[in-house]
Amino acid sequence: MAKDFYGELQLGILGGGQLGRMLIQEAINYNVNVHILDPDKNAPCRKLCNRFECGSLSDFETVYNFGKGLDMITIEIEKVNVDALEKLENEGVVVYPQSRIIRLIQDKGLQKQFFKQNDIPTAAFQLISTKENLYETAIPLPYIQKLRKDGYDGKGVKKINSTTEIEQAFESPSLVEELVDFEKEIAVIVARNDKGDVSTFPLVEMEFNPEANLVEFLISPSTLPFEVQTRADEIAKKIAEDLQIVGLLAVEMFLTKEGEILVNELAPRPHNSGHHTIEGNITSQFAQHLRAIFNLPLGATTARTNAVMINLLGEPRYEGLAKYEGVEDVLAVEGVFVHLYGKKYTKPFRKMGHICIVNDDRELAIKNARWVQEILKVKA
Amino acid sequence: MAKDFYGELQLGILGGGQLGRMLIQEAINYNVNVHILDPDKNAPCRKLCNRFECGSLSDFETVYNFGKGLDMITIEIEKVNVDALEKLENEGVVVYPQSRIIRLIQDKGLQKQFFKQNDIPTAAFQLISTKENLYETAIPLPYIQKLRKDGYDGKGVKKINSTTEIEQAFESPSLVEELVDFEKEIAVIVARNDKGDVSTFPLVEMEFNPEANLVEFLISPSTLPFEVQTRADEIAKKIAEDLQIVGLLAVEMFLTKEGEILVNELAPRPHNSGHHTIEGNITSQFAQHLRAIFNLPLGATTARTNAVMINLLGEPRYEGLAKYEGVEDVLAVEGVFVHLYGKKYTKPFRKMGHICIVNDDRELAIKNARWVQEILKVKA
Repeated sequence: MAKDFYGELQLGILGGGQLGRMLIQEAINYNVNVHILDPDKNAPCRKLCNRFECGSLSDFETVYNFGKGLDMITIEIEKVNVDALEKLENEGVVVYPQSRIIRLIQDKGLQKQFFKQNDIPTAAFQLISTKENLYETAIPLPYIQKLRKDGYDGKGVKKINSTTEIEQAFESPSLVEELVDFEKEIAVIVARNDKGDVSTFPLVEMEFNPEANLVEFLISPSTLPFEVQTRADEIAKKIAEDLQIVGLLAVEMFLTKEGEILVNELAPRPHNSGHHTIEGNITSQFAQHLRAIFNLPLGATTARTNAVMINLLGEPRYEGLAKYEGVEDVLAVEGVFVHLYGKKYTKPFRKMGHICIVNDDRELAIKNARWVQEILKVKA
Repeated sequence: MAKDFYGELQLGILGGGQLGRMLIQEAINYNVNVHILDPDKNAPCRKLCNRFECGSLSDFETVYNFGKGLDMITIEIEKVNVDALEKLENEGVVVYPQSRIIRLIQDKGLQKQFFKQNDIPTAAFQLISTKENLYETAIPLPYIQKLRKDGYDGKGVKKINSTTEIEQAFESPSLVEELVDFEKEIAVIVARNDKGDVSTFPLVEMEFNPEANLVEFLISPSTLPFEVQTRADEIAKKIAEDLQIVGLLAVEMFLTKEGEILVNELAPRPHNSGHHTIEGNITSQFAQHLRAIFNLPLGATTARTNAVMINLLGEPRYEGLAKYEGVEDVLAVEGVFVHLYGKKYTKPFRKMGHICIVNDDRELAIKNARWVQEILKVKA
């Protein structure tokens, strides 16, 4: 890049939510000029950037016009207009992750085919065009149906238990996937810069909210066997290299009861499974993403201590102007870091913030986190 | 306060420099709405707040109009119009630190008298109105002359070695102070909230740039004897309680060759001697200032590891658009955190950023910091 990453460089971010917000908190340290495009005029980043533009992320013209004249574009959400990004790339704007990778990851079908072609372990699957195809799939019941496009945070995913439930299946092109009887959901975040340096964060274990299918609880570093950690790490690095991605890539995996690792999904950006790195690791995932896209040496990812991350989700049944309960109580406990996302309105299970709980005593970190989970509530 | 500190509360900060900028980085975590007043249209905070107003900090009308309608005001620089703050306080705006404390600290003469009245150890001094008074002072030569008002970062301070130098002394009301033959300059940052909770950060040792009289190098935690640390800690707490301050107070002290501690100066705000707390301590000074002014439980100040802070000063002889040398090199070293302040123009010794170097091995932290100091330069 002709310009230094600090100073005059103009960086566009597609999406102005919490990931953009935490990326800005880090970008401030390097004088990066940040431009944000988001459809929500109340987006969390709106008051924290050089330029905030309210507009659609999926509209070609909007994305193209936003990106013209910028030096570099990155994303905090995959659901963006890739054709516009491709055109901008061709015109010399640096787009990281590359538009071809966003296109691949937007489509869960292409993602699975990529895994298959590159010998990346993943659950057996089949692509279907309409729900009629479900009657003839070779995948045994019960199975999971996932929309190929536009699903996120558990939306666009259905468990089909029996033939009678096919009636209620999604109509659109989708992916049928073998139901994995997993022991744990794990994730590795990997970063790659344009020089080809690759670096992973230590593996984390996640617990999901069964109702909302969102990460609710995450522990770092993992205490899983060394072989599991090494294997997951190798898989994440291989994917980053196979893709030749520039930027951050979150690799979500299942650890099966038999100790096998299966890759579930990719996210080519900072990810919920890396929020604990802000306080828990030497380099945070946000700092690492900036290092990767600016082709800088990648930072050390070593864990500084035990860190537990819990998502602060909007309470069920509450919708409206957000009100927070228990913030003062949790701030009284050592090693509790509150991150609110600046969202004006809450609704059931909306991600309103996260809390990171650090402690050199792992059991105490977990205990404090469970307590915070009881105390801290977002209502309306 | 009627409003929660997160969400609807409107916080004004007088000054939009690096201290305001780092305060904003932390305030983002709590959804605090930040309003900034600064005379420089290119101030580091200009693009990072809900409202940026360009105007004089010393003009009554400007400060009063800026503050009207806000819920709370704090400062990142002492040189502000205190009459306006006092009027705002009387009209119900919460001002922390309180206007009476800013007024006291603005005047180094009043500060010294406060020390004397409260049995706080400090170098012998005398107040004078004009430089003519220097001929009859009881303080032995050589001594230090300090302007009572408007001095900062080493400006407004003169060493007078002999009677012949009195000619070149400051004309304005000032303070003559015994020259302290000190071993080390040390500092303790103390926080106090409105409930009366008081908490100190571990003592730090500082090295000054002799040419610019600015902190250049700082090590935390200190390895000074326990008695020195305890004594300094007690002094800082006593001052915070004597003042009944709400907010952060940096207490700069001399450790004399005889092991005596003498208080040099106070700063009622986040301070250069606390920048290492961002990466080095559980709670950063910026988080602690917010906790104090919002009357929250004060955070744990324990050091997480060894941290060395070095100021990144504009190189002598360079003036103009800032250019940074060596940023990529220093980012390759583990535990090096770069904080640039978003200043467009550099000039000799201008504070352009700081670097924090952490390491569990203290000697290695110091070694890395010395190397960073060699490598990283701001030129034009």
